Amino acid sequence: MEGDIMGLILLDYSRKNPLYIQLYQYYKTEIEQKRLLAGDKLPSIRSLAQSLSISKITVEKAYQQLMSEGYIDNNERARYVVNKLAGIAFASNRQPGTWPVNPAKPDSPNIIYDFSSGEMDLAGFDFSLWKRYINKVFLNKDRLFTYGDIQGEEELRQEIIKYLQNSRGVYANKDQVIIGPGVQSLLNYLCSVLQDKTQSVAFEDPGFKNGRRIFADHGFTIVPIKMKNDGIDMDQLYASEAKMVYLSPSHQFPTGYIMPVGKRNQLLNWAENSNSIIIEDDYDSEFRYFGRPIPALKGLDTRDRVVYMGSFSKVLPPSIRLSYMVLPMNLLAVYRENASLYHQATSTIEQLAMAGFMADGHFERQIRRLRKLYYEKKLLFIKNLHQVFGDKVEIKENESGLRIILNVKSNLSPNEMFLKAQAKGCKVALVQDYYLAAAPENLSQIILYFSKIPATKMKKALKILQEAWF
Amino acid sequence: MEGDIMGLILLDYSRKNPLYIQLYQYYKTEIEQKRLLAGDKLPSIRSLAQSLSISKITVEKAYQQLMSEGYIDNNERARYVVNKLAGIAFASNRQPGTWPVNPAKPDSPNIIYDFSSGEMDLAGFDFSLWKRYINKVFLNKDRLFTYGDIQGEEELRQEIIKYLQNSRGVYANKDQVIIGPGVQSLLNYLCSVLQDKTQSVAFEDPGFKNGRRIFADHGFTIVPIKMKNDGIDMDQLYASEAKMVYLSPSHQFPTGYIMPVGKRNQLLNWAENSNSIIIEDDYDSEFRYFGRPIPALKGLDTRDRVVYMGSFSKVLPPSIRLSYMVLPMNLLAVYRENASLYHQATSTIEQLAMAGFMADGHFERQIRRLRKLYYEKKLLFIKNLHQVFGDKVEIKENESGLRIILNVKSNLSPNEMFLKAQAKGCKVALVQDYYLAAAPENLSQIILYFSKIPATKMKKALKILQEAWF
Repeated sequence: MEGDIMGLILLDYSRKNPLYIQLYQYYKTEIEQKRLLAGDKLPSIRSLAQSLSISKITVEKAYQQLMSEGYIDNNERARYVVNKLAGIAFASNRQPGTWPVNPAKPDSPNIIYDFSSGEMDLAGFDFSLWKRYINKVFLNKDRLFTYGDIQGEEELRQEIIKYLQNSRGVYANKDQVIIGPGVQSLLNYLCSVLQDKTQSVAFEDPGFKNGRRIFADHGFTIVPIKMKNDGIDMDQLYASEAKMVYLSPSHQFPTGYIMPVGKRNQLLNWAENSNSIIIEDDYDSEFRYFGRPIPALKGLDTRDRVVYMGSFSKVLPPSIRLSYMVLPMNLLAVYRENASLYHQATSTIEQLAMAGFMADGHFERQIRRLRKLYYEKKLLFIKNLHQVFGDKVEIKENESGLRIILNVKSNLSPNEMFLKAQAKGCKVALVQDYYLAAAPENLSQIILYFSKIPATKMKKALKILQEAWF
Repeated sequence: MEGDIMGLILLDYSRKNPLYIQLYQYYKTEIEQKRLLAGDKLPSIRSLAQSLSISKITVEKAYQQLMSEGYIDNNERARYVVNKLAGIAFASNRQPGTWPVNPAKPDSPNIIYDFSSGEMDLAGFDFSLWKRYINKVFLNKDRLFTYGDIQGEEELRQEIIKYLQNSRGVYANKDQVIIGPGVQSLLNYLCSVLQDKTQSVAFEDPGFKNGRRIFADHGFTIVPIKMKNDGIDMDQLYASEAKMVYLSPSHQFPTGYIMPVGKRNQLLNWAENSNSIIIEDDYDSEFRYFGRPIPALKGLDTRDRVVYMGSFSKVLPPSIRLSYMVLPMNLLAVYRENASLYHQATSTIEQLAMAGFMADGHFERQIRRLRKLYYEKKLLFIKNLHQVFGDKVEIKENESGLRIILNVKSNLSPNEMFLKAQAKGCKVALVQDYYLAAAPENLSQIILYFSKIPATKMKKALKILQEAWF
């Protein structure tokens, strides 16, 4: 038998493929295709090397590889023997090493104007400046060889603390700050910290559905709480069994309501009296165009009941993934018990670049720059809305944010409006899609972000919507 | 009353703080400290402006801010009236705007030599080269203003596919690849995709506890499966109700076992016959020092039963957070239904830099560079271990990886060894800590990574361990 096997081995000596790999592949195929069976002996190293005029080391390497992968064994010491392999018991759809059928492409309609996303205006950020801060990080390469601080780099946490104190009225300690690549990643950590605390979480309804989803994924029961004009319905919250509530008090998502200080106090009382937790999502409070930004609820939190979530992805381009949360002391203790089980997943280079950018005052400059840019865009947007739609729409807006809500007086359903806009290359968002409970009937509200639409194209883009809907 | 109130207002005209903010802060404090009560009227805009010799616009801005935050209202039209605020019903631990007490510092002993982590040797990566690829990304800034592709940038997914085909024997389509900032982030997405599929997941025991944790956080029951010398105990797997198993077949973590092809076939048969899923964590297969890397299990997966998890964080420094997974077609469909609810959280700049780095062949060069570096370090490490410990230890190693397992013949328990090493500035890891079920008694196994220990310090560092333990 040996002679036959050896006779069939055709080696390519052109050195494209090492000889030992060719030998290994030959025997692997023989075994897989059952031309060699369990218990069959392979030629001895010496005789195979002689017969093929190759070195014994080459044969040995091939046999070693086959042995490592479990095709053969040398229990008998002197000789290598084919192992008993479980056959693949099912008919194969395709051979190993062939490509799977191309999956069905997800339908991605051609979108020219995207009103559905708060992504940044192309004039909104100076990437040359950012590049300078990125390059500075490379001056201290040794720091980049490690995973870095488990809560995020200390310099950045310190800068965040300064910013929160000066701009958001939040006084916290850098040890309370945890950096993450996006609010969802942070909510994943938070769910782990909170899982022994409660099994249900109240959410503003309509509200931030991508946040809701993370809690649902972790097995929490979501309790939707109706929105009133001044924020969530406190009576519903009292009546619920929830020991935790998620909200955006300074600029509710998506309605835009501001929660007044009276209700903030009620909420803090509720948390203290019922031993509950408030999660404050302060996602875009920088963009208030008149007066000063509404202070964070966390600033009133003298009893350490509020988890504060912040993100840079409205002030920096969202391709730079930097978010953070501030934990109350008692949750910080729980977090630390388990912290080593979670690797912080934010790029160290971008963390350190951001720390330098903030320390040199560029972050505040960037906020002022964007506030001016978006204020002007917003005025233009509203002017264009009036011109294009006249009295066919009612514009719900307030003094902040990157979006408006449009009440459309149309016979079309919101879904029809969405599809007709999409067919003409415009993507919009619907308020109804942010409800967990049933949305109110006849809710003909469209969300339009203006941040990403170029000022020069605004009117044109709105005319397309007008033609789609009327 | 008006006269009194106005008389107390001391404005600082030095322009450090805008006048309207000073006015706003004055009334805010008056209301919070109950010197102004619900129903009290504020001075009219005109009279306050006159009395303070400031413009009416300044007063109006201050009143607007107070109104936005809910301190006052102007329901009576002509005059502004203090709102009824819920008092804070509990005694305050601290005033708003004061710092929380510094939290207890987590005990971070001073570690000089860290044997517990597979972080990179400082000579392992050329950051100047990487910086070039980062800087190239800035040539096309427009791409950086958006969130980017929800599965990760297409160029990088394409390069990953090429690498998997050439180096891991895995044939997949770029549409099946999902990028994430670390394996844990990807497991978060995966848990969401899998949650309707099964409620329990089998794990090699001992195994990757940070992965286990993510499944546990999502409410999955973890079924520990014993390890045999050729991988998990198939009989235990058959007997379990699990419809999913997580394993690292090419280099088991932490034991280092390679799963032979026969068992791989058994596993694929099990998955096909029981309609189950295999999650293959291929975390460091690049570092095989003899022969070629063990092919991935995914390469045998003709029936699309295997989710493949890969990471760059052993080949690139882990401060660059780039991982990926390859989904089978049926799970890809589930993922896509929900993909819009999850924002991919990997830095776009680092994704695009990596795509360029791979396309130019630097990734393969980097693997060869590290394989050589770590091979030499490993030989040196083992030589030093023999010299320093003699026959007091048994070295369990194989032909790959960045770590060895040490069986220590000592009267100390593993925990004592851990603490004694730590007291002398050395951090080690214990195999027993990776068990979910009870670890075998008398398991005196220490994990030592050599990747991060400088070659010139190795002997010195091992001597410290020797002194700590004997």
